[in-house]
Amino acid sequence: MNISPAKLLLLGYTSYILLGWALLSLPLMQAVPVAAIDNLFIATSAVSTTGLVTVDPGTSYSFAGELVILLLIQIGGLGYMTLGTFIVLSVTDSLGRVRKEATRNVFNLPEDVRPGYFVRSVVLFTLLVETAGALALYPMFVAAEVPDPVWSAIFHSISAFATAGFSLNSDSFMGFRDHVGVNFVLSALSILGAMGFLIVVDVLRGLTGRTSHLGFTSKVIVRITMLFLLVGTLLFFVIEPSVQALPPPERLMASFFQVMTASTTVGFNTHPISTLSFATLIVLFFLMIVGASPAGTGGGLKTTSFAALVGLVRSTLKGRDRIRFFKREIPLKRLQNAAASLSYYLVLTAVALFLLALTEADVAFEVLLFEVWSAMGTVGLSMGLTGELSDLGKIIVIVLMTAGRVGILTFGIALAAHDESREEEKENDLVT
Amino acid sequence: MNISPAKLLLLGYTSYILLGWALLSLPLMQAVPVAAIDNLFIATSAVSTTGLVTVDPGTSYSFAGELVILLLIQIGGLGYMTLGTFIVLSVTDSLGRVRKEATRNVFNLPEDVRPGYFVRSVVLFTLLVETAGALALYPMFVAAEVPDPVWSAIFHSISAFATAGFSLNSDSFMGFRDHVGVNFVLSALSILGAMGFLIVVDVLRGLTGRTSHLGFTSKVIVRITMLFLLVGTLLFFVIEPSVQALPPPERLMASFFQVMTASTTVGFNTHPISTLSFATLIVLFFLMIVGASPAGTGGGLKTTSFAALVGLVRSTLKGRDRIRFFKREIPLKRLQNAAASLSYYLVLTAVALFLLALTEADVAFEVLLFEVWSAMGTVGLSMGLTGELSDLGKIIVIVLMTAGRVGILTFGIALAAHDESREEEKENDLVT
Ligand SMILES: [K+]
Ligand SMILES: [K+]
Repeated sequence: MNISPAKLLLLGYTSYILLGWALLSLPLMQAVPVAAIDNLFIATSAVSTTGLVTVDPGTSYSFAGELVILLLIQIGGLGYMTLGTFIVLSVTDSLGRVRKEATRNVFNLPEDVRPGYFVRSVVLFTLLVETAGALALYPMFVAAEVPDPVWSAIFHSISAFATAGFSLNSDSFMGFRDHVGVNFVLSALSILGAMGFLIVVDVLRGLTGRTSHLGFTSKVIVRITMLFLLVGTLLFFVIEPSVQALPPPERLMASFFQVMTASTTVGFNTHPISTLSFATLIVLFFLMIVGASPAGTGGGLKTTSFAALVGLVRSTLKGRDRIRFFKREIPLKRLQNAAASLSYYLVLTAVALFLLALTEADVAFEVLLFEVWSAMGTVGLSMGLTGELSDLGKIIVIVLMTAGRVGILTFGIALAAHDESREEEKENDLVT
Repeated sequence: MNISPAKLLLLGYTSYILLGWALLSLPLMQAVPVAAIDNLFIATSAVSTTGLVTVDPGTSYSFAGELVILLLIQIGGLGYMTLGTFIVLSVTDSLGRVRKEATRNVFNLPEDVRPGYFVRSVVLFTLLVETAGALALYPMFVAAEVPDPVWSAIFHSISAFATAGFSLNSDSFMGFRDHVGVNFVLSALSILGAMGFLIVVDVLRGLTGRTSHLGFTSKVIVRITMLFLLVGTLLFFVIEPSVQALPPPERLMASFFQVMTASTTVGFNTHPISTLSFATLIVLFFLMIVGASPAGTGGGLKTTSFAALVGLVRSTLKGRDRIRFFKREIPLKRLQNAAASLSYYLVLTAVALFLLALTEADVAFEVLLFEVWSAMGTVGLSMGLTGELSDLGKIIVIVLMTAGRVGILTFGIALAAHDESREEEKENDLVT
């Protein structure tokens, strides 16, 4: 096995995308003729669980086409872990410690989690949650006279838990802004998917008595997720002019949902994103860049990388020798990965924005920036650009969605030539 | 001495700003009445060598007022080192190794450079270069019928070498876009100031036979500066629509000058910044964020921090254990500072942009972003917002210019409570 885990992961996703593209290109999958580039875009958006769409999935594809999209979403969300764990299992018996470590790093598995147990927990948990979600959505969709309520409930439950944000409604969930039940179920599914399976494993181990409390990483994930949702909702509620006319409870729910959708990277919306003020956009930008949690279905730099960088900044500002977060030391390797991820993320942002500025004429700067970060974070929200993209623009967004799903850093590792040179070189004092 | 070097530096700059504010508030300094907030803004912009102006310095202040501004610029540029080295000298004899190290870090002095020698070299070099610059500009300003050519030559030579970008002309150097001589002199002065005094010391040591070649840091600075100017100019020349109508030599010169002004953070311009395309703006954003080199007069994150982060990303992507740049290992402390600087820089950007989005209504997103990065990088270019800022907006920009001059990380250190706790804590595996 000469191929690195990162390359294997990128190849895996690419082959799912190509398979999806081939299937969606069949005439029987389409309700109206769809261009080849749009089928590729939709396949990539589904496998990457992004949810950006150049054509409306609900009206462009047949039931068979929608089923293919849903399977691609499930592969992208759950299958990420399945594929990942398959690799972990396949190398556990035959490979050395260094490569096992590398694989664990790619899939963010802590040392004490057994891959086999992890896979079984993930599959069981996903099926349970998705079934519960569909059962909860069904009666509400019937009452709201949604077409094909059974299919719609299944589709949106899976799309929410996989933080894919694909919707059969052409206006996402804007018709449900004041619907408490739908808001609650979609949010619960998205937050569970975004917090990731580490939490699930931790909770399961707690229930079976193997540990009495959440692990450190799980605690960090839960606290940061809750903090972001709380502070984000408050900020949105206070500063966003376009929700000020709503009755306070609906205003609060709209604030929460839009913050939740950016933070979990699910990408459904109940309020038009293109009307948001710049100050609110900056809050959403921040949430989309940080994104969801590791070993989950969401995208972004991940809450744990954010925690590592906060620890780095605070420790550096306070003149500490050790980098800490919540009074625990963060290992150097984790810090290096977080800092490299951030730097590489910014480079990709600059290159993508530069290219999109050249290919898309007369589009406002914040709209371009929103599209780039939405794709890189596999969020799927848009200020309206996606449907207007040029073919070159679509290709740029396709690359960004793929990079976002594989993981920004893993994407870079997959593309880079591996260098095993470890020769000792003279330490040198580079002034920074 | 209980006060930290970072706090002392921030206090030093703040006192110079307050002194400048007091002086500029005197009626004899003003040609027309200037509001208190504008005097504070101009004083901060001068001491921070930024060059953003809310009122036109050439018509708002008397000769005495212009002289005060020039002295503040000289203090901000040269005085930064003088003040810094004063602290270094004052602690060399009386303080322990740890604090000496901290002071050296703040002022980016390599281990083998003696502070006394450094100060003398800096002062001598500055006076020589500024005199040569003024002598070169004078006959060209006479020929171009610039008012007060002697004063204008002196003012602009110092303003260029200090990378302050303050101009007595209300349109900066837009009237000199095709003037080879003025372009050359201003660029040479700005590049020398931006490359910093480490290069000077290195070259002087080479000339006196103490070393036969440039040190590693100097090599990195020279190579990155030249690379940025070359690639930036080429990109600007090829992609910027607003210079396409110019004759090729003038188009090349306009491309070079605008790239040079962003990269050195001098902030003069020969072409209107508000007409630039988004793709070109992204190139300038990149240059302004990276900024100039350490131990010079320019701002930004610094070319050496950029080098450290490039080394970090490349080494991480290639799976190397050691972080290298130009085949030399970068010490962990340098990497930590570079990564912390970048992270803290992004946090400040987000907060400032969020606040400006609230205080400044109806301003385009890229114009707000340009103003924030221009202030944080002490660049001084603007897309036209500065003169239109609200009073709250002016205060935000004043804080950013101060933070940019003190150094983004040093600013954070100065504001943070120092924490000397070094207790051993359990190493913990935070998943990132
Ligand atoms: K999504
Ligand atoms: K400047």
